[in-house]
Parts: sequence; C-alpha cells; structure tokens
Amino acid sequence: GSGSSSSSNITLCHSEEMNGAGNLMDFLDEPLPDVGTYEDFHTIDWLREKSRDTDRHRKITNRSKESIWEFVKSLLDAWSGWVVMLLIGLLSGTLAGVIDLAVDWMTDLKEGVCLSAFWYSHEQCCWTSNETTFADRDKCPQWQKWAELMTGHTESAGAYVLNYFLYVLWALFFSFLAVSLVRVFAPYACGSGIPEIKTILSGFIIRGYLGKWTLLIKTVTLVLAVSSGLSLGKEGPLVHVACCCGNLFCSLFSKYSKNEGKRREVLSAAAAAGVSVAFGAPIGGVLFSLEEVSYYFPLKTLWRSFFAALVAAFTLRSINPFGNNRLVLFYVEYHTPWYMAELVPFILLGVFGGLWGTLFIRGNIAWCRRRKTTQLGKYPVLEVIVVTGITAILAFPNPYTRRSTSELISELFNDCGALESSQLCDYINNPNMSRPEDDIPDRPAGPGVYMALWQLALALIFKIVITIFTFGMKIPSGLFIPSMAVGAIAGRIVGIAVEQMAYHHHDWIIFKNWCRPGADCVTPGLYAMVGAAACLGGVTRMTVSLVVIMFELTGGLEYIVPLMAAAVTSKWVADAFGKEGIYEAHIRLNGYPYLDQDEFTHRTLATDVMRPRRNEPPLSVLTQDSTTVEDVETLIKETDYNGFPVVVSRESERLIGFVQRRDLILAIKNARQKQDGVVSNSVVYFTEDAPQLPASNPQPLKLRRILNLSPFTVTDHTPMETVVDIFRKLGLRQCLVTRSGRLLGIITKKDVLRHMAQMMNQDPESIMFN
Amino acid sequence: GSGSSSSSNITLCHSEEMNGAGNLMDFLDEPLPDVGTYEDFHTIDWLREKSRDTDRHRKITNRSKESIWEFVKSLLDAWSGWVVMLLIGLLSGTLAGVIDLAVDWMTDLKEGVCLSAFWYSHEQCCWTSNETTFADRDKCPQWQKWAELMTGHTESAGAYVLNYFLYVLWALFFSFLAVSLVRVFAPYACGSGIPEIKTILSGFIIRGYLGKWTLLIKTVTLVLAVSSGLSLGKEGPLVHVACCCGNLFCSLFSKYSKNEGKRREVLSAAAAAGVSVAFGAPIGGVLFSLEEVSYYFPLKTLWRSFFAALVAAFTLRSINPFGNNRLVLFYVEYHTPWYMAELVPFILLGVFGGLWGTLFIRGNIAWCRRRKTTQLGKYPVLEVIVVTGITAILAFPNPYTRRSTSELISELFNDCGALESSQLCDYINNPNMSRPEDDIPDRPAGPGVYMALWQLALALIFKIVITIFTFGMKIPSGLFIPSMAVGAIAGRIVGIAVEQMAYHHHDWIIFKNWCRPGADCVTPGLYAMVGAAACLGGVTRMTVSLVVIMFELTGGLEYIVPLMAAAVTSKWVADAFGKEGIYEAHIRLNGYPYLDQDEFTHRTLATDVMRPRRNEPPLSVLTQDSTTVEDVETLIKETDYNGFPVVVSRESERLIGFVQRRDLILAIKNARQKQDGVVSNSVVYFTEDAPQLPASNPQPLKLRRILNLSPFTVTDHTPMETVVDIFRKLGLRQCLVTRSGRLLGIITKKDVLRHMAQMMNQDPESIMFN
Repeated sequence: GSGSSSSSNITLCHSEEMNGAGNLMDFLDEPLPDVGTYEDFHTIDWLREKSRDTDRHRKITNRSKESIWEFVKSLLDAWSGWVVMLLIGLLSGTLAGVIDLAVDWMTDLKEGVCLSAFWYSHEQCCWTSNETTFADRDKCPQWQKWAELMTGHTESAGAYVLNYFLYVLWALFFSFLAVSLVRVFAPYACGSGIPEIKTILSGFIIRGYLGKWTLLIKTVTLVLAVSSGLSLGKEGPLVHVACCCGNLFCSLFSKYSKNEGKRREVLSAAAAAGVSVAFGAPIGGVLFSLEEVSYYFPLKTLWRSFFAALVAAFTLRSINPFGNNRLVLFYVEYHTPWYMAELVPFILLGVFGGLWGTLFIRGNIAWCRRRKTTQLGKYPVLEVIVVTGITAILAFPNPYTRRSTSELISELFNDCGALESSQLCDYINNPNMSRPEDDIPDRPAGPGVYMALWQLALALIFKIVITIFTFGMKIPSGLFIPSMAVGAIAGRIVGIAVEQMAYHHHDWIIFKNWCRPGADCVTPGLYAMVGAAACLGGVTRMTVSLVVIMFELTGGLEYIVPLMAAAVTSKWVADAFGKEGIYEAHIRLNGYPYLDQDEFTHRTLATDVMRPRRNEPPLSVLTQDSTTVEDVETLIKETDYNGFPVVVSRESERLIGFVQRRDLILAIKNARQKQDGVVSNSVVYFTEDAPQLPASNPQPLKLRRILNLSPFTVTDHTPMETVVDIFRKLGLRQCLVTRSGRLLGIITKKDVLRHMAQMMNQDPESIMFN
Repeated sequence: GSGSSSSSNITLCHSEEMNGAGNLMDFLDEPLPDVGTYEDFHTIDWLREKSRDTDRHRKITNRSKESIWEFVKSLLDAWSGWVVMLLIGLLSGTLAGVIDLAVDWMTDLKEGVCLSAFWYSHEQCCWTSNETTFADRDKCPQWQKWAELMTGHTESAGAYVLNYFLYVLWALFFSFLAVSLVRVFAPYACGSGIPEIKTILSGFIIRGYLGKWTLLIKTVTLVLAVSSGLSLGKEGPLVHVACCCGNLFCSLFSKYSKNEGKRREVLSAAAAAGVSVAFGAPIGGVLFSLEEVSYYFPLKTLWRSFFAALVAAFTLRSINPFGNNRLVLFYVEYHTPWYMAELVPFILLGVFGGLWGTLFIRGNIAWCRRRKTTQLGKYPVLEVIVVTGITAILAFPNPYTRRSTSELISELFNDCGALESSQLCDYINNPNMSRPEDDIPDRPAGPGVYMALWQLALALIFKIVITIFTFGMKIPSGLFIPSMAVGAIAGRIVGIAVEQMAYHHHDWIIFKNWCRPGADCVTPGLYAMVGAAACLGGVTRMTVSLVVIMFELTGGLEYIVPLMAAAVTSKWVADAFGKEGIYEAHIRLNGYPYLDQDEFTHRTLATDVMRPRRNEPPLSVLTQDSTTVEDVETLIKETDYNGFPVVVSRESERLIGFVQRRDLILAIKNARQKQDGVVSNSVVYFTEDAPQLPASNPQPLKLRRILNLSPFTVTDHTPMETVVDIFRKLGLRQCLVTRSGRLLGIITKKDVLRHMAQMMNQDPESIMFN
C-alpha cells in the first residue's frame, strides 16, 4: 500500500543546510553546478533561506565600512527592494492597460468594425464621431456590423444570421488561437494561476511557472480568451501576470534571484499589484495578498506591497483604458441610503452566494477530476472549441450574455439615472412626480424591465452552468468576473422585485416608513453589488479583502454593512457544506504540497507519523567517526534519501547533526580528485578533530564543514498539532525525532501532509509531488 | 555584575506545561488554587495556550454528538467570538461617543456657559438658538463668556483678564481632578497605554492593566485631561479603553477568560475597534492593529477585528457626536487636483515630520528617564499642575492654541470655501475673477492671513516644546493629535507660502502650466493634511495604517500619493536617526519584555546565551528514577527556578522531559497527604513503570503525569538568529540546549532579551521584569 510506495521517496530533498551558519557559504561560492538552488517540484527551507540572507546582509554591512564604493553598493542593495516594486507596478499597470484596451477592441470585433479606424472599439469609434447624439450614443455610421458591411442590410433575418455566424466564428477563432498558443508555447499559462501561486508562495518550486514565456503567452492568450466571450474573467490571470513580472525583475538583483525566500516576498507584493490593477483597488489588493495568497507576510512586505499596488493602479489610470479617468473597474455612485429591513433580502442574497459557491466548487472539481482521469483530458483543444461554440451559440441571442461580462456587471451595478437608455431602466414615467434632479423616484416597471427580467433569468441559468465547465480548461481563465456576474444578475432581479413590491404595496407595514410614493427607496444596483460580493465570497471565501475591494469600488462606508452581511452569510453557508474555497480545492485536486493555515486538531503524536514505521528497516544514519568512504558511497547508491542524520555511534544513537546527500556526493568527489590518500577505506570524520593515525592507515576525510550542527528535533511524544505548527511557522523541510536523546526517526513535510490528508480521511496518494 | 545579579532569577516561571498533551488537563480540572493561570509580570506560553484551546475544542466537539443540548452549547461556543466582538464594538463606540460629547462640553466650559441649557457646548448652544445667523454662527446671546455673565462687560480689558483667569483655573481644576483620580484609583490609567498593550499582546501578564477600574477611571480622566487643554489627544487612550472593554467581555466566556492566548486575539480586535472610533476609520483601525499593536494575528482575527471596528464605527455614528453625520473625525473634501511639482514641498514636509519625530522621541525619552531617575518622579500631581498652568497661560492669548487641538486640526485641514469665516481664509476679493461656484480661485492673502501665519508659527513652537513634556505624565495622554497638530500647522504655513508664491509669480516656469491667474492651483488644506501624516509617521513609524487612515478621512485615492510620499520620507528620515518609534522607545525605557519583529543579525550561537555560564554551578536537574522526595524538596527550597529538566541519569545527561516547580510542589503535597507510604526517602519515578520494590522499601511516588514529555530543544550550535526566530514565532518561554543528545543548559525568553540588549550595546539591566 502507501507504505511501500512512498518509502522509496522520503526525499529529504535538497535542502543544502538548515541554518547556513556561514561555513557552507564559502563552499557555495565555488561555481558548482546548481549549488544553492532547489530542484523542480521541491520544497524550500525557509529557515535556511532566511539565514543565507542574513549572512549576505552581514557581509555587505561589514564591507560597506571599507570604502565609499562598497558603501554605495550597500545603499543600492538596500534600495533594490523599492526599485523592484516600482518596476513591478509600472509593468503590471501597463500590461493591465494594454490587456483592457485589446479586450475592448477584440470583443467588439466579434460584432462589427469601425470604418474610420479599424483599431477603435465600438465605444471609441462612436465617441470620436461627430454624428453621435447623446441619446443614441452607441450608434454611429462609422461603426458597422459585419452583415451591414458585407450585405448592406441591417435589420433583415439574413443579416441577423450572418452576424450570428460571424460572432460564433470569431469566438471560435480567438479561443482556438488561445488554446493553441498555450499548448505549444507555455502550458503553465492556463487556468487562473492562483492555486499554483499560493503553493509557490508557501515554499514550493515550479520552474518556469513564473517565467518570461509564461508572462508573454499568458498576456496574449488572456486577451484572446476573454475576447472569445467565454465565461471567464481576467482578474485571476492578472495576478499571475503580475507575479511573472515580479519574478522577471527579481532576476535583476542577486539579492532576490538567489534567495527563494526573498523572492517570495517580492511575489507577495506582485500579487497585490495584480489585484490592484484588476479592480483598481490598491488597499483591497494588499489585503487580498495578505488574506488569500501569501504565506509568509512580514510587515516590510506589507508596506512594499502597498507601494507596488499604488504604482500599478496609477500607471493603469494614466493609460486610462476605461476612458473615465477612474481607477476602478466598476465605478458606481448611489444616492439613496439603505434601510434596516433591506438586510433581509441582502442576507438572502448571501445565502444564494453560499449555495452558488458550494455548487460551483463541487461541480467544477467533479468535472476537473473527470478531465484528469478520463479520455477527456487528452483533447484540450477540442474541449475549448466545443465549449466556446456552445457558449457563443447560446450567448448571442440574449443581449445580456452577448456583450462582455464586465459590461454586463457594470450595467447591473448602475443605478437608473434620468438619461439612462438601458432596457433595465424602462420604467413608466408618471408626469405627476417628475422631479428636477438627476435621480428618479420609484416608478412602476415598464415592459422593457419585464423583458429584461426574463432575459436576465435565462442569462443566470446559462452563466451558472457554463462557468462550471469553463474554469479549468487549458486557457487563462479567472473566476472573479463570472462569479460576480452570477451574483449581480441574481441581485438585480431581487432588487427589482423588492422595488416593485415597495412601489405597489407602499402601504405595507414594512415599507410604510421609508417608501412614500414618489420617493426613492430601493436601489436595485446596490442589490446587484451585494449579490456579486456574496457570490464571489461563496466561491473564494475571501472576507476582509472582498469587502474592502467592494468598498473601494463604491468609495463610501455607507454600503459596507450590506456588503459585509452578505459576505459573512455567504461564507457561513458555504462553509457549512465544505471548508475549502475553490483555490484550496484545486490545490488538493492537483496534489500540491500546501500546508494550509487551518488548525490541526487530532490527537496523534510525532511517533505515529515519523519514519521508519514499526515494520520498516531502521533509519539510514552515518556515524561520526567509524564510517568509511565506501560505506557512504554504498549508502548513497542504495538509497535515494536526500540527507542523512549523523550519530555518535550506532550503539548510543546520539544525534550530532544532519548532512545533505548532495553535499556528501560533492565532497567525496572533490576529495577523491584533489586530496591525496583518500581511498575507499578512508574513514569519514564528522568530529572536530580527526585522531592522529599511523601513516600506514589511509588518509582520513574530514567532513565537519558540510555537517549541519543544528538540525531541528522534537521528541517522540510531541503532539502532531505542535509539529504541524512548527512546520508551518518555521517553514521546515524535515525534523528529526528523538527519545531521551536517542535518534528515533524523521518527519518530512511530505509525511506531515500525508498524515493530515489521512486524518481528513482523504486519499493519501493525492500528494503527488514530493 | 550582571551575571551574579541575574543568576538568581532564571525564573522558568510558571509555564505549566509546554504542550498540554492532555494528561495534565485532567489534573487541572481539579479545583486547585490558581492552576492554569499565570502570575503577574510573567510571560505566557503561546504553544501551551494553543494546545489547551485545541483540547477544549476537541472536548466540545466530541460532546456535541451526545445530545441536542450539548450540540447547542457547542454552537454557542462557536458563536461566542462574534458576540464578544459585537459587544466590544457597541461599548467602545458608545464610550467614544460619550467622551466626544463630554470633551466638547467641558472644553467650552473653560470659556463660558450656555444659558439655555448648561450641558450644551458652544456649538450646540448656538445651533439650537433661533437668533443665530449663518455668518456669525458661533455667536448667540444664549452663549455667554464667564466675564460677560459675571460683569456684563464683553470687550473690556477687565473682562479679558477675568476670562483668562477663569480659563486657567478651569484647566487647573480639570487636570488636578484627572491626576488625583489616576493616583488614587487606577495608576494604570495613565499614559497612552499603547506600549503596555503591545507588551501584553506579545504574551505578558500585567494584572489589572485592562481591568474594570482602569476602564472607568481612564474614561473619566481622559475627558478631564483633554478638556484641560493640555497638549494631548484621546486616540491612544481610546485604544486602551477599547482593550479594557475587550477584556471585560472576555470574562463572560470561559473560552476567552481561561485562555490567555485566545484572550489576546480578542484584545487585538479591540485595539482595531479603538482606532476605528478614534478616527472613524475602520479599515485603518484593523491595519493599525495588524501593523503596530498586535503580535499574533491569525486571519480569523483579521475578519473579526474588521467586524468589531465596523460595529464600533457605526455605533459612534449613530451617537453622532460631531453633529455632521460623518464617521470620520476630520472630514475634508478637496476639489482641486495636485500637481507633480508639489511633490517637492510634500517631501520637505516629510523631512520635517521625520525631524520632528526624532526630536520628540529623543526629548521625550530623555525627560521621561529624568522623571524616573530623579526626584521629579515623586511629585506627579505637582508636575501635572505646573505643566497645565504653563500650557493654559501660554495657550489663551493665541486663538489657535486656545481652542481644542481637534478643532485646530479640523480648521487647518479645511479648504477655504466662499462662506468660510475663518481668519485663515481672509483673502483679498478681486471682483474681476468672481466665480459662481463654491470654491474660490487663488487670491492674494489679506492681513488676516498674515496675522494667522504669525500666530500659527508661535503655536507651532509652543506645541513642539510643550508636547515633549506632556506625554508621559500621570494622566491619560495620546500623542496622535498633538503630533498631527504640529504637522498640520507646519503644513498649512508651507501651503499658504506655496499658494502665495504661485499667485504672485504665476509666470515662473514651474507654475506656468498649472497656475493660470484666477485658477485654483494650490490647496493649503492638503498641505496641512500631508504635514500631519508626516509628523504622525515620524513619531509612530506607522506606514500602511497611517496612509489608510488618512485615505479614509479624505475618501479619495487622489491624495494617496502625496500622503505616501510624505509618510515614506518621514519614516526614512526618522529611521536614519534611530530605528525605534515612540512606542518601542517607551517599551525599552520601561524594560518590558517585548520581543520585537526586527531581524537579529549577530553571529552568536545558542551556547553563548544559555545558562549556566562557564563559571556557574551546573544546571539543577532531576533524574528519572533515582531522586528521593527529600532531594526534590531540598532542590525546591534552595532554588527559585520555576521548572527543572528531568534526565535519565546524572552520568548520561540524556533529557527525557521538563517538570514545573508548581506542579512538583502540588504533587508532593497531595501525595504526602493522601497516598500512604510516601515519606521523605520515597523515590520519585518519572518513568513509565516503577519497578516492583520489596515491601520494606518506602512506597514510590510516580510523577510521570506531571512531566512534559515534549520540551523544546535546540543544539548548542544553533545560531541565535534561529533561536530568536523560534522564540518569536512559536511564543516559547524557555528552550533546552543539548549537544549530541546530552543536556547542556537552558535559554529563557529573558535570556534572549538580555542577549539582544547586550548585542545592541545597551544596558542589560533595562529588562526589569522577568
């Protein structure tokens, strides 16, 4: 079973030294292949990385007193963090602006083209035209639908069919291009990227996941995927793009490129910049990084994240892709307050959000598992084509699904002003209660509103179903926007229902106080926003960052209470059906070694988890002064453990240190080549002084310098909850287990993860990587 | 020297068990005196508290399956955290509202009284009067100055002198009352409380510091102290008041009252609520708690803090003490954008803020040290009286210091509208450029403005000097408001200077693009705000929370860049002169055992820090099966260590566990009373099974159940930076040091702190508490 299959890879893989106490550093300065780096799909050792950075810092500080040049260098080193943040902010802001502009243009390209300049989107085209009136501001002669351009007809059935056909064709073309680019150039560019970034930030290595190719291909394919009209958003992938930028700029400074711990500080800040540009919410971005993505988040990172997020937001604003000089994606302004009684529908929307979250996570995970385990996974291109085709065919007839999801959300959030031409604002005008202001009192809904309600209901069902199948395909896909769309549609429907109820029954006891006829009392747009927050919260289980992002969208503390009530209800309802958010669920599905922050509450002890188990062969150890070079070489050949404890003697089993496999191999190779007299039966000494041997004996090999003298130990009676806490907080890779000073066994991060999975009654084999 | 004086108090004081593995818990269930609590001025053991909470949680979860009633109880337990947060929010919001109202009234009482209702403040009095015109909205017949009331004259020199005299008298009366109440009833109510709360949150016990008496007295004396016109604010003390509320409500639920770790989670949230009501900035409050105050801040606490902060803010708003229906203390609305060139004066304000921070911290610490070490400290009442007298005498003649500091800041922040009657807005009207809007273009300053500038300059010097002497007296005193006042005055002066320069020299190259005549181009109020942020940042070294609080005041992302530029400059300038903020400086001055989050970068090893030192007697240990009851009693009598390591035998020195002094005493006492045959020469067994002894031998005493089998160990070669990291992240109280499985010594939190202080070349004796 699991015992035998995993005993072959206890893989104390590759952590050079736990506390790089300096002596190893000189050794590392030699240009050895890959020294100081980790292998792909391996876990980093946080304590060691921190220790290495302290050493580096100490060196630079000492040197800085020597000369002016060294002092300047030390200043540059101290400033490099801020420079990296500035560059990340600038680049991710620019990329987000370019993506926004390109998506705008290509989304409209599915329907028509601007004759005056083909690179204009519909809005830009008519904006620059002189013949546009305010009432018909989205109609102008320069913008022509494809059918109009080709046949000259605009209203005929043939034109409709031709437009329909070309809409689907463009969508298929964009998504085919996207999935092909991902398949050929950068397989890591698919998905939202947030589960993987969470895993990377927790201390895992996935080479190339944040590489230049991934950055380039993800940016391009993100534009294509969003433009194709699939039910996906750009917010999650923008976090991935920003992290790629962060990784790119890390390579400029050895401080970050050579230290995986410091690199992760930069990546945490980059994630904040990503959310900042996705929503135009810098504070929300920082809190998102803190709450949702990051693992190790010191205060210094908080401040730098904030800086990066702000620079990114202002770069995006200076590009001004939305054309409204606003930072935020969905800028809304509400004029009427909300009333206590409205908390009931808000909480109902929270319940809906929680249920949606549960349905989405279960459905999506089941579908993704099916994709992994059946033939389905072998045809990613076909899958994307089919889903795009279905999406486009079903989306075109409904005006609320035909347009881009961001536009839809924006319309649903907005309040009906006097000049609004939307179908959703088709209320019956009552001349008796016309008022001079811009905002319009409650009125009976007209036929347009009822029509819109039907279309929205259909759009809701369509979005719910199609999003479950879309997220996880081999193209860049975020789920913020589709989730928000589901919530916004549901919210707007509820909002209009409450509004009409309040208008027609304003003498009911609950409406009596706040809904006099002719007064504004219900804001359907606010319901849409609350619904969006609830649905997003149900899927991601964000809390503070969600409310802060929404707060930054509205800019007023007024509406925080409804948002919070919905967010908290949605989280509670969703948690009742399962503790995991979508990102954690995908992490588990993919078997990433992520040690989450939940409490471990089982009563097991270190002795139950450590290797070797009772029926397994004893732990492979070295002795400090009685092992020969040949013994060591045999041990290295016969096992694949990535490190070995060193004990005083096999009888006493008293631990003196821990030595890495890779260091041992290199040291013996070097010694055999360079040091005379080291032969197979030379004794390896880990003691401070090797004894004076008669000349006839072979030369001893002293290896104390590669020995880690401070391995981390716990006793066999330590509760696992403490061990888990230690692994999590100190970022350990392994820990030795002793009883009464005797070495008993070893616990690796993988053992901890496997044990936690077993305790959750889950498949222990789901931990794929080591 | 330090060696001999401190060897007597290695004080492994009182951590019952490091990892309460369950066996001790049964023991604790017996009603023993004070079991499970810590002594005053001792450090808590975070791991143990966490472990105890997990045990408790496990018990409740198991029981909840037994009956409906137990299930309901488990639900109530799960909800108790939210209930506590709600209560904290309600009470701290209410207290803040009451304090605001009382301060308003009593501040005005120094000048006069409302005849229609003596409990009205000046503003309320004239607000309710019918005879108030808008232009003279602070003059109404109902409000009479003291001289007017007594003599009937208003403008004569005699009236001025009488008003002056009564102003000083009231101030003296208020401050005398405040200091007397603090002296007699609650000595812990003095100061801002934030250094102590930081220390408590880091895991220290100060009994009564958050007690009911402190809450009551601090609330009352805070009103008195602020009303007396001293240069102090209510923001820091409000955090203390909110934490007292938190502590109060903890006692309602055994989950929090019996677990010092869980209690600190509640206190972190309470601190957020305190800042939230102090500024009306809930998000800023949460970030302040996270950045500045809290030590252990899990995500669950983040969400709950946010909830508490919001409830508190909305409670305060429903009380509406400022009468403007606004949440925030200083609500401002600016209409003009800022220009890149203005970053130069903003950064200069940042430099000023940094210098002010350095000056204030150095001056205040030097004065506080003098107070501690000289005769001065013996006359706290006299000191308060003298400082109040000087403050009142100097403050009265200057209109900018006579009023309350909050009002001053509010006026300095505000832009000059068309209807503004302030002296600061006395610009010369130029009829050629009158505009219909509310905002007024740049104009030449009138004599009122020049007069105001002189008065502000004097006020600046006065505030700078008096604040240094005020903070740290034996009354509640916060430094947010005085610091902000200093910055706001400096900022406003700079703002007016830049504005006038731009007006008179709008043809200069730097003003050319943005300062056409008749246009708004400089907002002096914004400069005041930037200056306030810079000065507050220089003193407290807050960064993100500072910017977010200021952002919540203005409500627009527009002005974040100036604020951030000033805050970051101020922090860098201040850091260049000394890394410590005012709170850390006071923590060090008072010798609190606070392990701060800074990096420890020295190359010392555990062996350099552990006790016993080379020339000291060996470590006092127990053996597992060869110590008699008498030996143990002698050891307890002769030493005052609060715990003893247990080893296999004195020869092998192999560690098997750690036993607490208090547990040993209780266990032996119990055994002597209840267990037959336990006499002085009974052998104490810590092994799993005591051997079968002949009947003639005395009965053995088995004490394995009080033995902590998982003491935390490190090797003697472990670098101190790792040890410090472990102590900080795991919240340890002590750690045993081994070499090759042999016990060598022990490191306590106090040893770590002393070592860190030594490494900083500071007085090791400053660690007063253990």
